[in-house]
Amino acid sequence: MTATAVQTLATKTDLKADPSHAEMANAIRFLAIDAVEKAKSGHPGMPMGMADVATVLFSRFMKFDPTDPAWPDRDRFVLSAGHGSMLLYALLHLTGYEAVTVDELKKFRQWGAKTPGHPEYGHTPGVETTTGPLGQGIATAVGMALAERLMHARYGDDLVDHYTYVIAGDGCLMEGISHEAISLAGHLGLNRLIVLFDDNGISIDGSTGLACSDDQLARFAASGWATSRIDGHDPQAIEMAIAAARQSDRPTMIACRTTIGFGSPGRQGSEKAHGAPLGPEEVEKTRAALHWPHRPFEVPADVLVSWREIGARGSSVRQAWKERARKLCSADRSPCHDALNKKLPAAYTERMAQFIAQLTAEKPKIATRQASQNVIDVIATVLPNLLGGSADLTHSNLTKAKTHKSVTPSTMDGNYIHYGVREHAMAAAMNGVALHGGFIPYGGTFLAFADYNRPAIRLAALMGIRVIHVMTHDSIGLGEDGPTHQPVEHVPSLRAIPNLLVFRPADAVETAEAWDCALRAETSPSVLCLSRQALPAFRTEASDHNKVALGAYVVVEPEAGRDVTLIATGSEVAIALEAAKLLAAEGVQAAVVSAPCFELFRKQTAEYRAEVLGNAPRIGVEAAIEGEWARWLGDAGEFVGMHSFGASAPADVLYREFGITPAAVADAAMRNIIRARAS
Amino acid sequence: MTATAVQTLATKTDLKADPSHAEMANAIRFLAIDAVEKAKSGHPGMPMGMADVATVLFSRFMKFDPTDPAWPDRDRFVLSAGHGSMLLYALLHLTGYEAVTVDELKKFRQWGAKTPGHPEYGHTPGVETTTGPLGQGIATAVGMALAERLMHARYGDDLVDHYTYVIAGDGCLMEGISHEAISLAGHLGLNRLIVLFDDNGISIDGSTGLACSDDQLARFAASGWATSRIDGHDPQAIEMAIAAARQSDRPTMIACRTTIGFGSPGRQGSEKAHGAPLGPEEVEKTRAALHWPHRPFEVPADVLVSWREIGARGSSVRQAWKERARKLCSADRSPCHDALNKKLPAAYTERMAQFIAQLTAEKPKIATRQASQNVIDVIATVLPNLLGGSADLTHSNLTKAKTHKSVTPSTMDGNYIHYGVREHAMAAAMNGVALHGGFIPYGGTFLAFADYNRPAIRLAALMGIRVIHVMTHDSIGLGEDGPTHQPVEHVPSLRAIPNLLVFRPADAVETAEAWDCALRAETSPSVLCLSRQALPAFRTEASDHNKVALGAYVVVEPEAGRDVTLIATGSEVAIALEAAKLLAAEGVQAAVVSAPCFELFRKQTAEYRAEVLGNAPRIGVEAAIEGEWARWLGDAGEFVGMHSFGASAPADVLYREFGITPAAVADAAMRNIIRARAS
Repeated sequence: MTATAVQTLATKTDLKADPSHAEMANAIRFLAIDAVEKAKSGHPGMPMGMADVATVLFSRFMKFDPTDPAWPDRDRFVLSAGHGSMLLYALLHLTGYEAVTVDELKKFRQWGAKTPGHPEYGHTPGVETTTGPLGQGIATAVGMALAERLMHARYGDDLVDHYTYVIAGDGCLMEGISHEAISLAGHLGLNRLIVLFDDNGISIDGSTGLACSDDQLARFAASGWATSRIDGHDPQAIEMAIAAARQSDRPTMIACRTTIGFGSPGRQGSEKAHGAPLGPEEVEKTRAALHWPHRPFEVPADVLVSWREIGARGSSVRQAWKERARKLCSADRSPCHDALNKKLPAAYTERMAQFIAQLTAEKPKIATRQASQNVIDVIATVLPNLLGGSADLTHSNLTKAKTHKSVTPSTMDGNYIHYGVREHAMAAAMNGVALHGGFIPYGGTFLAFADYNRPAIRLAALMGIRVIHVMTHDSIGLGEDGPTHQPVEHVPSLRAIPNLLVFRPADAVETAEAWDCALRAETSPSVLCLSRQALPAFRTEASDHNKVALGAYVVVEPEAGRDVTLIATGSEVAIALEAAKLLAAEGVQAAVVSAPCFELFRKQTAEYRAEVLGNAPRIGVEAAIEGEWARWLGDAGEFVGMHSFGASAPADVLYREFGITPAAVADAAMRNIIRARAS
Repeated sequence: MTATAVQTLATKTDLKADPSHAEMANAIRFLAIDAVEKAKSGHPGMPMGMADVATVLFSRFMKFDPTDPAWPDRDRFVLSAGHGSMLLYALLHLTGYEAVTVDELKKFRQWGAKTPGHPEYGHTPGVETTTGPLGQGIATAVGMALAERLMHARYGDDLVDHYTYVIAGDGCLMEGISHEAISLAGHLGLNRLIVLFDDNGISIDGSTGLACSDDQLARFAASGWATSRIDGHDPQAIEMAIAAARQSDRPTMIACRTTIGFGSPGRQGSEKAHGAPLGPEEVEKTRAALHWPHRPFEVPADVLVSWREIGARGSSVRQAWKERARKLCSADRSPCHDALNKKLPAAYTERMAQFIAQLTAEKPKIATRQASQNVIDVIATVLPNLLGGSADLTHSNLTKAKTHKSVTPSTMDGNYIHYGVREHAMAAAMNGVALHGGFIPYGGTFLAFADYNRPAIRLAALMGIRVIHVMTHDSIGLGEDGPTHQPVEHVPSLRAIPNLLVFRPADAVETAEAWDCALRAETSPSVLCLSRQALPAFRTEASDHNKVALGAYVVVEPEAGRDVTLIATGSEVAIALEAAKLLAAEGVQAAVVSAPCFELFRKQTAEYRAEVLGNAPRIGVEAAIEGEWARWLGDAGEFVGMHSFGASAPADVLYREFGITPAAVADAAMRNIIRARAS
């Protein structure tokens, strides 16, 4: 669009008494421009380009109430192109979210402000999910739209009747995760999902034509979406397209042709508008071009009043919903109540305790993936809001409960998702399900493929949401599939993600306890690393507390005091226990510690940690790369584990060839005991 | 296909004298069946389903010579569906690759065999790339096909004239990376790339319809591909489709409708054929159904002779090529020669030494990303086979040399790829380029997005290939973009990948040295972690060797002996140097160590490591999660770094708020010195 065209658009609306669409949209544009200018960094181009679309969406369609950002039946708005955060902050401010004051806008991208560089869930009310890493928003939104349909199937229109809107840019659609997300949403027919594609033809390097020639409409259509293309600066076209999308029986993608940096005579339509302040001179030119004579951060009273009216509109709708919810979610319909409150039902606690007691007695020698299957079968009966799934490895991950029903486009009352070979979208969709509320999502894949969904796991950890990853085949113990499928660095790499609980349970009881920890961790995602191979039971004595919750604990404490402490996780605890027996035969007293979760161990008191670790030399045993083990072993210790990728062979051969055996552990123990005594 | 149809197909070809197509294909099928049966694990379904396609491809199109698996102008065959490894091993054996004997087939999936569970590059001659993690093969093949066109533009038909064929399954096409790869190949018009889609309608959970409704042909067409759909058991249809694809001016996807487990009366067309042995009884039924009365691993002489003839056919073609190459790659056309030999030219060594000397004198205070840009500008002039690129962050990563020319469909003589916002496909394509040969690929993105391309980085490390990742914005030092863009766990997580060189250089000289290490690391991929912010120069004295190559080295050695050793990497070396000054003012003698690459430090002698680390308490300083630092710090040490995600604010504010400052380092030093003296 030329500067003249911009002027015409801005001028022709001057005649109206009410603030014009252009004025409403320009309020967004200039808040974005001014905030980026003040911060001396940020992304003005996208908010300027998409201000018209956002104005139509929020003023004519969005169901929300700024006084209750957590209202379950609100429409969800996801800014997948998270770098355009000022678009969202401007909307939150204009529509009346109390926390997002004009002062917060002035502190854009500063320490402690409600307005960080990219939108952060849990930090700013009204932000539905953390975005910035491209493609995550659209995939997370698929989870939200899925949760909406699942809840709708359970509770009906009166309780659940909302849309999920996404603004996504070229970058989001180039990312691989977008394919997985689009394909999954199309397959499931998530018709409440509406993607507004900011089709501005510009990415950071320059024209998108430098790198991309996709026909995006054809691509979405190939995955079963409804599509349309509109002028993203034409309010009427925007309104008609969104209205049509809301009636569609399929998810809809609306390609909105926009001009990045719309209104800036010198920058619009160029990558120069994307990621840097316009600069004082260009800001002035833009004010002139868009007829916006106001000072920085000033929104004319009539425009602000109009925006606040839009924000106030949802209040009565929400009150009516609340009244219906009060009636429908009565005491005798507790699942509905629990689902909305995200709480574990009382029956769960009882059943889990019972089940663990049973395991302690039965002492099953099974793979921890099988132990996990048994847990799932049990908890599925007491957790109606558990939402299972796997990335096409159901029979390997053992993730589907006997009582679970697969979700299909026509059976949204199911509770098991066949995510397909889409690990990344699975993880992001689970984030969306957790953020939406109503379900506790878990999903399975092989641990080696934690690399595929790592960006979404990271976001879950950053957001602090309860998402459970069931990751089986957790070491060289998977055997013949070889090094591509054998995680060696994945456990240490996942442990490095802050606020992620990485569990590597060692038998059936520990697996149940790890599940219990994961379910109770309301502000942390969890990864359960589970074995393919059978492991002997060693937790055969009743315990009045969840030992896995301690992170690490003593399994064997020699009465005569410790000569050495063997610390192991998962399948290697059995090896440590065998090694202790070998050492005992030589008159050496070995304590054995199981350490299923370093992150939880770190949270214990220094006294408890010291007691568990002891003062004797420490040998760490884990069929993985060392990573942070040195922190627990200290100078006098040694690590018995992997120092390279694995190989293709039966599991027992691999353990022998890579030197992770009871004899090797006992040797290491002797070596370190002797060294310690000598020094 | 019904069992009757199978029988008909097998029967009607019995009349011919030469081995029929069916017999040739059945040789593949039964080698796969028998090997999986003997191994008691593996994936028979895919080789059985795609045997017809593979037979036509290898017998009528593939240009290869089993006596010279590294012949540069061979066609590349990539088994993206790597679990079907027995298809490939059977082909290698049948066509005469010496290493792949029938004994090796009998040792399928066993320790030390040439026939691991998934195909491994560098382990088995004839395997072009390691596959197994789905989607990687097709994306790697894009890199191979790209390298072919780039080489072709430089050296012409006489030297470079080959195809890249891929067999990909539903799983590969569901993975997000496939979107990035397909989109990139379509954009670049890589017409020598031909994907044979094993369209069998089955994935592990069951029918693909459980999870996927994509119109794959429409999807590929949307990205500019030619497409066709054929009966994957009809040799004539297969031949016609491949012939047409070879003539296309676009990449081609041929959807081959096949029956998984073709020929097995009880398993074909079912997910049960996918990933487990058929079992003795079903094997017998399959032998009967396919008229294959031979014993396990027995290939009738006439069939083997025919296959060996196919394998021998390439010899004369290769000889003729060799003759042309000898003439064309004469001494005066060294770039061609160097490209084919993958060697660094002599001019490089000289120019790099000169450049480092210049930096030592100039002492520039610049960001290491800028220092990297300067290195690239220099080396691009002496490394004509350097292939640059970025995932749409060219101006942020600073990856394009002044002399570089962008590659477009019509300028394949360029040497800079705009990979688009496709980090994952970029990394995999770079793997493909390196595997193809002729170029040293490097590509840029933000370090935080190392999570997006991690699966491909892992494969590069496993394969041992030279691929260079330029990853900028390497810590909270990037400032206002906030925690989504601030890597904190990425450096420790990357360090956990075996055989990956993770460099975090601290000034301009170290950046040049890190580049030099990466370029010389012929069997390791590298990640260069580079700062957004400017860093002072401290390597201001001439050195006769590359210090970064030592992994860690002493920067400051106090004459009076060490009270403490401060070890830092990247941007934190400057903080350690400042801390040493603060300590000196208090009369405390601090050594300062720069540790740009833990992996290389680990490879030094124990004596050298001990000398560098010293006996005084050690303080580690890195704006990241601790990870393996404890290994270097020991019991008497302390780590000053990150313990959480970052935040959105200017860099200096973040360093202060997160306590990574000279004062904090000095405090930690004092604390540990006192503690050490007290104990």
